[in-house]
Amino acid sequence: MSVLIVGSTALDSIKTPNAENPRLLGGSASHAAVAASFFSPVKLVGVVGNDFPKRYIQLYQRHRIDLEGLQILPGKTFHWSGEYEINMNNRRTLLTELGVFETFTPTLPKAHQSAQFVLLANIAPSLQLHVLKQMQRPKFVVADTMDLWLNIALADLLKLLKRLDAFVLNDSEAHMLTKEDNMFSALKKIHKLGPKYVIIKKGSHGSILSSPRGFFICPAYPLHCVVDPTGAGDSFVGGMIGYLATAKGSIDDHIRRGMIYGSVVASFCCEGFGLMRTTRIKRAEIDRRVKELEKLTRF
Amino acid sequence: MSVLIVGSTALDSIKTPNAENPRLLGGSASHAAVAASFFSPVKLVGVVGNDFPKRYIQLYQRHRIDLEGLQILPGKTFHWSGEYEINMNNRRTLLTELGVFETFTPTLPKAHQSAQFVLLANIAPSLQLHVLKQMQRPKFVVADTMDLWLNIALADLLKLLKRLDAFVLNDSEAHMLTKEDNMFSALKKIHKLGPKYVIIKKGSHGSILSSPRGFFICPAYPLHCVVDPTGAGDSFVGGMIGYLATAKGSIDDHIRRGMIYGSVVASFCCEGFGLMRTTRIKRAEIDRRVKELEKLTRF
Repeated sequence: MSVLIVGSTALDSIKTPNAENPRLLGGSASHAAVAASFFSPVKLVGVVGNDFPKRYIQLYQRHRIDLEGLQILPGKTFHWSGEYEINMNNRRTLLTELGVFETFTPTLPKAHQSAQFVLLANIAPSLQLHVLKQMQRPKFVVADTMDLWLNIALADLLKLLKRLDAFVLNDSEAHMLTKEDNMFSALKKIHKLGPKYVIIKKGSHGSILSSPRGFFICPAYPLHCVVDPTGAGDSFVGGMIGYLATAKGSIDDHIRRGMIYGSVVASFCCEGFGLMRTTRIKRAEIDRRVKELEKLTRF
Repeated sequence: MSVLIVGSTALDSIKTPNAENPRLLGGSASHAAVAASFFSPVKLVGVVGNDFPKRYIQLYQRHRIDLEGLQILPGKTFHWSGEYEINMNNRRTLLTELGVFETFTPTLPKAHQSAQFVLLANIAPSLQLHVLKQMQRPKFVVADTMDLWLNIALADLLKLLKRLDAFVLNDSEAHMLTKEDNMFSALKKIHKLGPKYVIIKKGSHGSILSSPRGFFICPAYPLHCVVDPTGAGDSFVGGMIGYLATAKGSIDDHIRRGMIYGSVVASFCCEGFGLMRTTRIKRAEIDRRVKELEKLTRF
């Protein structure tokens, strides 16, 4: 089944201690869409300006990403610039130029409204809600977020949470949202806000799922070298929903393995700037790392 | 087979955001010995003063810990006092009174010299070396350490490393020792210093093993409430070597499961002050958490 992915489509200028790369293809929806494309057909909804390089359109197309929902408007593409510190764990934003993203309203083409698997990648919760209102009856809706929305759009986010099957956030965001230090207490509070599945991301320490069937400790695939972690979280959730859309049976039967696939795609994402490594992944490489993770966690 | 454990035996006064407990039984060897005692007979080597409470001797005895190697000297028992911050991750030392520990020389009774499984729990590397020199031909020697020795006794530590089968340290210590940010690079450098098995502890994020057979990602058992993490690392390595001493076959066949057992004993340790929870563990509770960890990591 195909996956509908809505989020930001951007140009990222990224600086790390070792290198600098301007105007790479980025944005939550770009990373998630390419990640999901290794498993399922993807429909992308986003907005870019008329400065958006043609080679990035071609990149989406090489991944057979349906671009009917990608608006190309007069003006500039959303441009984000950031810098990572020496250990690659902390980053600071140098510049944010919203461009055409400032007035973006995601409008779903008719064919998109019946999608069964929906990923609301990180954008304003009001836009994520606006997408859901246009959907018919999706089987599985997962949303990602960021600390900014917890600070400036909490009311919208709380409205959104009531309508989600799954919610993905990182550990510091879980703490911000619930004021709980303990993970179990935080998870319990987030479930009460709506979602049946809650995933807390912990960067290189992996992630934790809380679902009706119980908890799951999902490892990160250990890397010899992190080149650029931008988009790793988006790749994780993109890979997960891409895998879920191919699996028969209940979500709870497959979400653990889905997280492992997401974790593996995220590991490739970190091995190159922007989408440079992700776009070169071969499916057999993904399966190999999944097998390795099986071995790495067996006792 | 029995396990020989050498390290500090102390009185710990511990303050957390919620409570304060003076003069608890503590020290690396105490935590490790009680942890190992759930699996194998333990011989403890350490020193206490004549102020050492009789009830703590009885506590060791209840765990059938052989105290022939425990020196009781005129003077005061090593006393450590520390305080944890609100999230229980950072602690600061308030006071260290070495007492009889200041001139401690671990001398092994004859019966101890032929032990097959040896844990050199955290004490000065020169003392850990001194113990090894008295041993006949142990099958498996593991040592733990702390940042202090990396700072003030690095030469001794490097000498020790050449004689170990396994070395356990935490992630910040691995970084201190190797100057490497990447875990794989750090592990590679530590192997070059001697030990065939290297375990990097990451607190609530679990631990990583590097062994001839490859890597292992060992999860921490997730806790609803951390009361006092003092001694968790010692409990981990104590539980691990206790389990290993019961297992037939090669170390590499069993060390992964040994780490899981250690991780589970460490989880109980965190649920009470000092050794309060650890001493009340029932073997069936350990096995239950090991089974849970199996379920929590399966995909």
